[in-house]
Amino acid sequence: MNAAPELRQQILATPQLHPRHGPRHSPIHSLVLTNGDIDHVAGLLTLRESQPLALYATDAILEVLRANPIFNALNPDYVGRRRMELDQAVEVGHGLTVLPFAVPGKVALYMEGDDLTIGGETEDTIGLEVRAANGAHFHFVPGCARVTPSLAERLDGTPLLFFDGTLWTDDEMMRTGTGSKTGARMGHMSVSGPEGSMAALEELDIGRKVYLHVNNTNPILLDDSPERAAVAAAGWEVAYDGLEIDL
Amino acid sequence: MNAAPELRQQILATPQLHPRHGPRHSPIHSLVLTNGDIDHVAGLLTLRESQPLALYATDAILEVLRANPIFNALNPDYVGRRRMELDQAVEVGHGLTVLPFAVPGKVALYMEGDDLTIGGETEDTIGLEVRAANGAHFHFVPGCARVTPSLAERLDGTPLLFFDGTLWTDDEMMRTGTGSKTGARMGHMSVSGPEGSMAALEELDIGRKVYLHVNNTNPILLDDSPERAAVAAAGWEVAYDGLEIDL
Repeated sequence: MNAAPELRQQILATPQLHPRHGPRHSPIHSLVLTNGDIDHVAGLLTLRESQPLALYATDAILEVLRANPIFNALNPDYVGRRRMELDQAVEVGHGLTVLPFAVPGKVALYMEGDDLTIGGETEDTIGLEVRAANGAHFHFVPGCARVTPSLAERLDGTPLLFFDGTLWTDDEMMRTGTGSKTGARMGHMSVSGPEGSMAALEELDIGRKVYLHVNNTNPILLDDSPERAAVAAAGWEVAYDGLEIDL
Repeated sequence: MNAAPELRQQILATPQLHPRHGPRHSPIHSLVLTNGDIDHVAGLLTLRESQPLALYATDAILEVLRANPIFNALNPDYVGRRRMELDQAVEVGHGLTVLPFAVPGKVALYMEGDDLTIGGETEDTIGLEVRAANGAHFHFVPGCARVTPSLAERLDGTPLLFFDGTLWTDDEMMRTGTGSKTGARMGHMSVSGPEGSMAALEELDIGRKVYLHVNNTNPILLDDSPERAAVAAAGWEVAYDGLEIDL
């Protein structure tokens, strides 16, 4: 519970990280889940500030939360769970609207049953179009098993896209000795290759393209790697902690 | 997933943090849960290294894990869940044995039902006596609602005690505007006062006394506070990240 001295100094020097009201205020007003996997939902367990928070998700993801009473740690007196319908925009506060859409993906690993489908377009894995009152908008697709024609059509013309950058190649986890699953098995298309996202999105008119959700085996994380150079040459940036974007 | 440069440097400079076998080896061989609350179990979700790990807990705490499928993220092929019986020592590896015992406490907040009992001595909150093959041993009691005569008797004579240092005073969360619950409601006795742990353990013969599980409202965290001076004068230390103890 003790912040390291360097971290504490950094927090004190960063006004936007200060609580604005009382000692435990969080600036997070609402959040939208795009998937039920650990890396998307475990962070909820640290959002226990006892202040109003709106949690938006599809019914499939809300069902994952309901199936795990540990999420009652988010006090229902403060945290409202709000169901989103696919392809119906919702206003999430501060003049922002969010339009959820299904993308090819799969159910959370820990909820997998015997009837597992990978790459289906269901409520389990979604992308978002986020739009401000002034019309500024972007697309957010942190997990995606493949770019379908309808997804390509949706993303064409967007001024800003955040996209699934989990793996460079499909067999990366096995090759690096970090896992036994392919990207395809995990519901993630790779960045590289003829079936990869660089190729799939190459012809689209997208203002700014940013890979995020990058696994720590993916060499695009290294500033000086040939793989980073390859994505940069294709017009992609790689997200990093603290990235800020003005629209 | 990118470690900050300073952190990465620190990890590289700290040999005991290096993976010993393969890129994702964890040095954690087994672990023992003493409670089902978020701060005791949420960390499990980051232990997904796909290497053997033994997870020891009482049946009450194993039931909490069973009730939350999210803990299936700890692959059952690697993570064995082992039931501990109160007052029966188990060997947890590396020649260490652990003896679990009930201490006054309560069920995890997010599992509370209508029939809530606080301060009961059940399987929900336990302490541990940890003993090495050479006889070195210590007691570990990170959560405790009160020191009963039998607990005092058990701790008397231990060479080292880690004890619940959550709060300085019972109304600390309310006074600091950080919460609405008393320590008593949370199942934690305070450090100070006539009913506090300093007083309750004062007369016992304990070689070394260390407060841990210290809430960030507790002024004993501050090196230069009068409260820190008070616990130091009573023979207590305050645990910190990276604390190492040789027995």
